Amino acid sequence: MQNKKLKLGVIGTGRIGKVHIATLVQSVPQAEVVSVADVNIESAREVAAKYGIPNVASNYMEVINNKDLDGIVICSSTDTHAAIIIESAKAGKHIFCEKPVDLSIAVIKEALSAVEKAGVKLMVGFNRRFDPNFLKLKKMVLDGKIGDPHILKITSRDPAPPPAKYSAVSGGMFMDMTIHDFDMAAYIVGSEVTEVYTKAAVLVDPEIGFAGDVDTAIITLTFENGAIGVIDNSRKAVYGYDQRVEIFGSKGMACADNNFPDNHRYYAADGVHGSLPLNFFMDRYTEAYANEMKIFCESIINNLPMPVSGKDGLSSVLIAMAAKKSFLENRPVKISEIF
Amino acid sequence: MQNKKLKLGVIGTGRIGKVHIATLVQSVPQAEVVSVADVNIESAREVAAKYGIPNVASNYMEVINNKDLDGIVICSSTDTHAAIIIESAKAGKHIFCEKPVDLSIAVIKEALSAVEKAGVKLMVGFNRRFDPNFLKLKKMVLDGKIGDPHILKITSRDPAPPPAKYSAVSGGMFMDMTIHDFDMAAYIVGSEVTEVYTKAAVLVDPEIGFAGDVDTAIITLTFENGAIGVIDNSRKAVYGYDQRVEIFGSKGMACADNNFPDNHRYYAADGVHGSLPLNFFMDRYTEAYANEMKIFCESIINNLPMPVSGKDGLSSVLIAMAAKKSFLENRPVKISEIF
Amino acid sequence: MQNKKLKLGVIGTGRIGKVHIATLVQSVPQAEVVSVADVNIESAREVAAKYGIPNVASNYMEVINNKDLDGIVICSSTDTHAAIIIESAKAGKHIFCEKPVDLSIAVIKEALSAVEKAGVKLMVGFNRRFDPNFLKLKKMVLDGKIGDPHILKITSRDPAPPPAKYSAVSGGMFMDMTIHDFDMAAYIVGSEVTEVYTKAAVLVDPEIGFAGDVDTAIITLTFENGAIGVIDNSRKAVYGYDQRVEIFGSKGMACADNNFPDNHRYYAADGVHGSLPLNFFMDRYTEAYANEMKIFCESIINNLPMPVSGKDGLSSVLIAMAAKKSFLENRPVKISEIF
Amino acid sequence: MQNKKLKLGVIGTGRIGKVHIATLVQSVPQAEVVSVADVNIESAREVAAKYGIPNVASNYMEVINNKDLDGIVICSSTDTHAAIIIESAKAGKHIFCEKPVDLSIAVIKEALSAVEKAGVKLMVGFNRRFDPNFLKLKKMVLDGKIGDPHILKITSRDPAPPPAKYSAVSGGMFMDMTIHDFDMAAYIVGSEVTEVYTKAAVLVDPEIGFAGDVDTAIITLTFENGAIGVIDNSRKAVYGYDQRVEIFGSKGMACADNNFPDNHRYYAADGVHGSLPLNFFMDRYTEAYANEMKIFCESIINNLPMPVSGKDGLSSVLIAMAAKKSFLENRPVKISEIF
Repeated sequence: MQNKKLKLGVIGTGRIGKVHIATLVQSVPQAEVVSVADVNIESAREVAAKYGIPNVASNYMEVINNKDLDGIVICSSTDTHAAIIIESAKAGKHIFCEKPVDLSIAVIKEALSAVEKAGVKLMVGFNRRFDPNFLKLKKMVLDGKIGDPHILKITSRDPAPPPAKYSAVSGGMFMDMTIHDFDMAAYIVGSEVTEVYTKAAVLVDPEIGFAGDVDTAIITLTFENGAIGVIDNSRKAVYGYDQRVEIFGSKGMACADNNFPDNHRYYAADGVHGSLPLNFFMDRYTEAYANEMKIFCESIINNLPMPVSGKDGLSSVLIAMAAKKSFLENRPVKISEIF
Repeated sequence: MQNKKLKLGVIGTGRIGKVHIATLVQSVPQAEVVSVADVNIESAREVAAKYGIPNVASNYMEVINNKDLDGIVICSSTDTHAAIIIESAKAGKHIFCEKPVDLSIAVIKEALSAVEKAGVKLMVGFNRRFDPNFLKLKKMVLDGKIGDPHILKITSRDPAPPPAKYSAVSGGMFMDMTIHDFDMAAYIVGSEVTEVYTKAAVLVDPEIGFAGDVDTAIITLTFENGAIGVIDNSRKAVYGYDQRVEIFGSKGMACADNNFPDNHRYYAADGVHGSLPLNFFMDRYTEAYANEMKIFCESIINNLPMPVSGKDGLSSVLIAMAAKKSFLENRPVKISEIF
Repeated sequence: MQNKKLKLGVIGTGRIGKVHIATLVQSVPQAEVVSVADVNIESAREVAAKYGIPNVASNYMEVINNKDLDGIVICSSTDTHAAIIIESAKAGKHIFCEKPVDLSIAVIKEALSAVEKAGVKLMVGFNRRFDPNFLKLKKMVLDGKIGDPHILKITSRDPAPPPAKYSAVSGGMFMDMTIHDFDMAAYIVGSEVTEVYTKAAVLVDPEIGFAGDVDTAIITLTFENGAIGVIDNSRKAVYGYDQRVEIFGSKGMACADNNFPDNHRYYAADGVHGSLPLNFFMDRYTEAYANEMKIFCESIINNLPMPVSGKDGLSSVLIAMAAKKSFLENRPVKISEIF
Repeated sequence: MQNKKLKLGVIGTGRIGKVHIATLVQSVPQAEVVSVADVNIESAREVAAKYGIPNVASNYMEVINNKDLDGIVICSSTDTHAAIIIESAKAGKHIFCEKPVDLSIAVIKEALSAVEKAGVKLMVGFNRRFDPNFLKLKKMVLDGKIGDPHILKITSRDPAPPPAKYSAVSGGMFMDMTIHDFDMAAYIVGSEVTEVYTKAAVLVDPEIGFAGDVDTAIITLTFENGAIGVIDNSRKAVYGYDQRVEIFGSKGMACADNNFPDNHRYYAADGVHGSLPLNFFMDRYTEAYANEMKIFCESIINNLPMPVSGKDGLSSVLIAMAAKKSFLENRPVKISEIF
């Protein structure tokens, strides 16, 4: 065992909080989770017991005020992200924050400003960047195998929509779901999005429309480097979670298919059959979540820049807002209109 | 042998004319090519000799005026299509015409009107509809396997751009190349396109831009039935001809991949390798071209409606025009603006 | 049109005869079918009418005695092959003969001897050698991409067994069906088979067993160059015609999958589905049959060695006999035991 | 946390020992590793420190004599397996033992007899049975989707041969490597192997031959239920670890392909390229190893029969011996000859 471990506190012990804690405890020997908090103290206690975490709280300030901690992992609800970032920064802690940082540009900027002022590191949780498939595509772009990127294509479809009432809280499909794709788009192409045009519809569930949201969309992206791209989204793919990326350029094209639970094929009299793609985002992105948390810890330990910056977190929210504005006004919207 | 064969004349013995003649002679026993014409009489003579066709002309009116003929197959340059359609209709001949009918809406309407007045049949040459892959997708939509269509995706990329000067003659990328995709989109979804938004760029060759055309595009489509769609185009895919379609709906998703010359995989120390897709459109669509000509003949013989109507030919040109207008004005354009 | 065409006569106008005639007429402009014969004269007449062949006979000697002919294509029943080869050779005609040459080693040797004596060319109809997939594998072996071949694997399964009574006439599964695989094995590895061990069974239909034949087999091959191989056969694959080859060596592995009628995939709630492989051998090997006949003609025209020799035809029969002996005696049998 | 955890001791802290300990500590909350031993005490100490295991020993009897333990996990060298099984059984501990149990039939029988006498549970470590791909195939056989099994095919190739001197210790390729395939064959088909025929060669490395072993083999299997099968092995696949299974029967065929680190495809001017299969057996079978250890623990906790019995461990050794005898005598060998 090492003498000095990175000491972390996790705020929020819901689904994603548990995933990060499991990674930290089981697969990051250089880190130690010494504190957890959740407004639901029972949830925090249960997790603490399971993973042998000594300190439990319902108030996140107890975690932040813990002098021993090097970093804070924020897995609470979106509306609390910015406040916790600001307090963590003030306390001099490095920060991992689940996406999105906030639904308001002003609030995000305030949080990023606090981070900058405090000189701490901030990583935003765009886990998909750490998926082996998309890492491979990114590497091929960096290695010049694609040449100049011309066309980016992302297909991103969920197995089932969230409850319609969730739309209000989450900021809607673009802010809650497509935000991952906006981040992926800029990441793969290696250039900022400058303009967006959204064609969207309510085709899955009228309730989603009544709640003021959409469930199906095709979003055209223009990148600063001249490339163009398209994202297609659906809230309901009956065959499961569909996550594919394709990057086409002057020297070739690379595409990443879904992951499947196995590689069998069954040849019967009525056709050839195979398994559906992994259906649950935590199964699909198991490796991505683990990689993400490891890299967060390594970036602190080795004092490296975070692979997903606060600015990346801001950019994706700006694009999401432009996408919504484009949909509402049925016209292309420049990101510069949003600032 | 049958007593009565369908007697056909072919006008234009360039590349595509030869393909149709070969199909008719070799694979359509109920039809007989009795006449060919080409402004280049030598080309017409050569083809006639090879396939044993008795009548050869340089003037297409000689073909049209042949009393024995039941139908005319128009494979000449686009600027002659409408005139030949009109003359053929007047002469009471059924007509197959390569796409596009014309580059002018007024002229197309005049030609369609002549066809209607004469009561003859007209089929427009959207050969891709007859490709086994896309036929399969269409069948799955018709069989209800997709449910309500939500999202259509077409990837259509050429191996290499035509000479830049060709842009002027051809009407540009949307009219020359994407027109196939516009037709395919409406065909697969089973609904008319009502609005289009184009984001396009010159990324392949600046000469194309100087000629006033584009070489890369992402085009968003809105369909009358509420579905939405996207086409992505490039004039230059270094890996060859890339032709894929995906249709996603409430009950499932079907996608059609490219065709390959073989199904081998090679596992070497540096990776797994396979053959590139079929690179030449005549290899990729060999079966589609043959099916198309057979169905044209069968529709005449059995007095059935043509599978691709004059109206389909008009629609695709309207969408192409709207796509260009959308690109120039960077805004979504309704097809109704074009009429 | 060329001044001098290769003039051919076809003996036997059953299924395979028709395939070869169609290829010759439609796709081999340098050749001309001027004569056909079939014991069923009606069949011969029908084919002649369809393809415009001037001479029709019921007696194959009429074809052979036609002084104008350059070559004879033998598509009659196996028991007539050798006699027709001998007569054709005597008449100085080049010969294409469907496999197998005969079921008796002595008879084959007599036929080959007649061919050699007459100095004519003989090609045996192992069409699968001309399939694009297997040609690709052969090319990779020749190009050194596989390195030294170590392991050859052939899966060869029919969609449905022939009538049990057919077993007697055909010589049984090894002589009728596996013979293609024996030829393919030696062809791909580029070395003669020296020993064979057969484990076979009657698992598909007891009637086949009552007729003295088997319907399922695993056959181990030893090659002169030290490589080893295995063929697995079944007379009944409910999912269709299954034809795959894999070659593994010191530098890599190449495998050829089946051909499919289309490349669609359907993702539904109950799994991912695709089309079955091409089910009928004439669909699966359409291109192979056409390539084969073209190469036969080219080899005569350009005076080149035939790509499948009489010796190849003999070898495959020897292996088939050894395979059967191995099965009956449940021990490895050397090919040298059969001579 | 549960009140009562399954207490385990692990003997042998080499590569595989570490894998099992990691699974037990991180992913089996109902189990606790309280003791480890290794002849290399430093190795044992290091592992104990990393995973917080309280008791460390160099002599395995210290582990076995620990009254608190419920079970023993044997990961030591093959020559110690039987003695440790016997001592563990005498001590009333349940046993997990890595394969093979031993290289001598007599010794295996003695060990199994001790297990039976003591009434403890024994599971033999055929981890591949717990791979999701092969589990899927087994399930399809059990669900009747294959119908009556007719043909089993296993391809099993290692990325690189072990040092030639290892052959002596390991018992040779059949006992060390193919033994997994023998177990898989009987498992998938659901029937015992009754006869085996081996064709083997030294094609990879002459040193292996000098050491009295082979490196390439094709092994035909006959099953009690009438099915037949074939295993092909190589000690060196330059493209990595190649592990595929195919089961063909009266109702269909199911095949399981390799696992790959990602699902990307790269289309460049020179072909289509993808990643090589997972190259290292611990990456390929990560999930299988974890599943295996969980099921071992669950079988003890819920008092269920072990999924891989001592008899299974014996069977695979018998087949390996028959395979070697068959190779040496170049004849099919019945398993009953080995007893």
